[in-house]
Amino acid sequence: MHRSKVLITDLVDNLLVNGLVEAGMDVDYHKDITQLEVNNIIHEYSGIVITTKIGLTEDVIAKAENLKWIARAGSGMDHVDVKAATEKRIACIVSPEGNAGSVGEHCVALLLSMLRQIPEANSSTKAFTWQTDKYRVTELAGLTIGIIGYGHTGPAFAKRLQGFDVKVIAYDKYKMQFEDSFATKVEMEELFERSDALSIHLPLTVETRNMIDTAFINRFKNNIYFINTSRGHIAPNRTLIDALNSGKIKQAAIDVVDNEDFDLLTPKEQSVQRELLAHPSLIATPHVAGKSSITRKRHAEVLLAKILAHSGL
Amino acid sequence: MHRSKVLITDLVDNLLVNGLVEAGMDVDYHKDITQLEVNNIIHEYSGIVITTKIGLTEDVIAKAENLKWIARAGSGMDHVDVKAATEKRIACIVSPEGNAGSVGEHCVALLLSMLRQIPEANSSTKAFTWQTDKYRVTELAGLTIGIIGYGHTGPAFAKRLQGFDVKVIAYDKYKMQFEDSFATKVEMEELFERSDALSIHLPLTVETRNMIDTAFINRFKNNIYFINTSRGHIAPNRTLIDALNSGKIKQAAIDVVDNEDFDLLTPKEQSVQRELLAHPSLIATPHVAGKSSITRKRHAEVLLAKILAHSGL
Repeated sequence: MHRSKVLITDLVDNLLVNGLVEAGMDVDYHKDITQLEVNNIIHEYSGIVITTKIGLTEDVIAKAENLKWIARAGSGMDHVDVKAATEKRIACIVSPEGNAGSVGEHCVALLLSMLRQIPEANSSTKAFTWQTDKYRVTELAGLTIGIIGYGHTGPAFAKRLQGFDVKVIAYDKYKMQFEDSFATKVEMEELFERSDALSIHLPLTVETRNMIDTAFINRFKNNIYFINTSRGHIAPNRTLIDALNSGKIKQAAIDVVDNEDFDLLTPKEQSVQRELLAHPSLIATPHVAGKSSITRKRHAEVLLAKILAHSGL
Repeated sequence: MHRSKVLITDLVDNLLVNGLVEAGMDVDYHKDITQLEVNNIIHEYSGIVITTKIGLTEDVIAKAENLKWIARAGSGMDHVDVKAATEKRIACIVSPEGNAGSVGEHCVALLLSMLRQIPEANSSTKAFTWQTDKYRVTELAGLTIGIIGYGHTGPAFAKRLQGFDVKVIAYDKYKMQFEDSFATKVEMEELFERSDALSIHLPLTVETRNMIDTAFINRFKNNIYFINTSRGHIAPNRTLIDALNSGKIKQAAIDVVDNEDFDLLTPKEQSVQRELLAHPSLIATPHVAGKSSITRKRHAEVLLAKILAHSGL
């Protein structure tokens, strides 16, 4: 029998490497490989493991004549041409379960940080002032939290809100019913009507790109708190700046921006992104929501199981 | 019947003022009154409502010849000589229920802010860098959270940890059993043995002052995350600096310090407090945990009910 040849293109937990080897595959583990190198050798492989570093566009997939599966440690597949892969019957394997809990925690951290002005209160106090009257906090209790997208991270966030005496409502275009009771399923109209805060949990697709525009934001009845741990382009920089300036978004907390490779920004894009990040009503973290110290291991476990299942092993 | 005369010494919600008046009491509402003024007129009153601004030391209580009750909006009574009051059969009424939820939320906010380096990651990102590899986060899931003091704010914190896949253990010297299932009751030995994080929920008393000293901290098996939303003097500045420097406390997040009136610090005390607040492994907020926008109303509701019950109304 012809042995499967697998290329691993970024740092992964050893249990994935060892698991594939034990399953009889030949593994080339090149964690520092570049995109150009991948493009040149991808035709040799029947499987490839990627993170966000390596993109698999249509032209790369066209060269991947032996490829049977793409395994992505994580969930976002916006850098892979899934349609082209599917047409070539290449399986796309993801591990959204690997970091959903960490993302859910991060959303609570961001929400409470906004409501309690933690970064600003911390800065002022560490600078040796004690402005106890300036930083009166807003309670989470009593608020209604709206979630759009109820796949893996949405429920993980909702689960963590259980103890806070909040109402959690969620909309998911592609789910007929929810498998848990952490959130109440609603239509978008009701979500616009009731939400005090909005957190989006969506993949970046043709459908969701620029989905959160000014018209969308203005449909909310209340001025809202906004959280984005998904992808910047779903709620673009410009939309957020305008909504923060108008007050329709009271405060925003984001883990993603339009372009996270700052070197690739045009001067105009850089100016907008800088304006957003510097906004006084915005809290930002550098795409770390799902990157806890143990998510790498979980991604490895999930991917290994799915790769072996796909390979009939 | 002789009408009761009540002095209110700080801003309170109107429902307390109106409720006392409707119950037939004469209310003097002097929200800007000074300590000296209180000392001079307290003998006229059968009831007094205070926050932290007015202290009722033994000599003040000695003058309060008609006083039947002291109502404190909040929970800490370290500025009231409860023993002297009790000896004069003056009832001490507190409203810990008023802000327990807000304090519980703040503890979660502080814990997640430490584990996810929110203030530091936010500062670096707002300064237009995107250091996604620097700020790898630590998950709360899987940790064991130790709570000392399981009165009102302890359970409020434990309740809010329900959805996070953590173990919550608590010690309370004066409680034979807990009325909820948010935490497992343990002895101190077990708390020292198992905790990954410690949050204290204690009043400042002769017994708890300086309770958290270096010897106490060193009894923990693990290096710990530490949260103090109670009173600074329970875990003094100097202890925290030493434990942060030794690494026994990995990170601390505090809402209280030894002396929150910075004008009253000696040069030596100021130097120590400044060293603590500036410590890179410390997050601090200026005693705002319980000061949400709605706690004033809740304090008023709770105090009114208790005052009327005490007065047999």
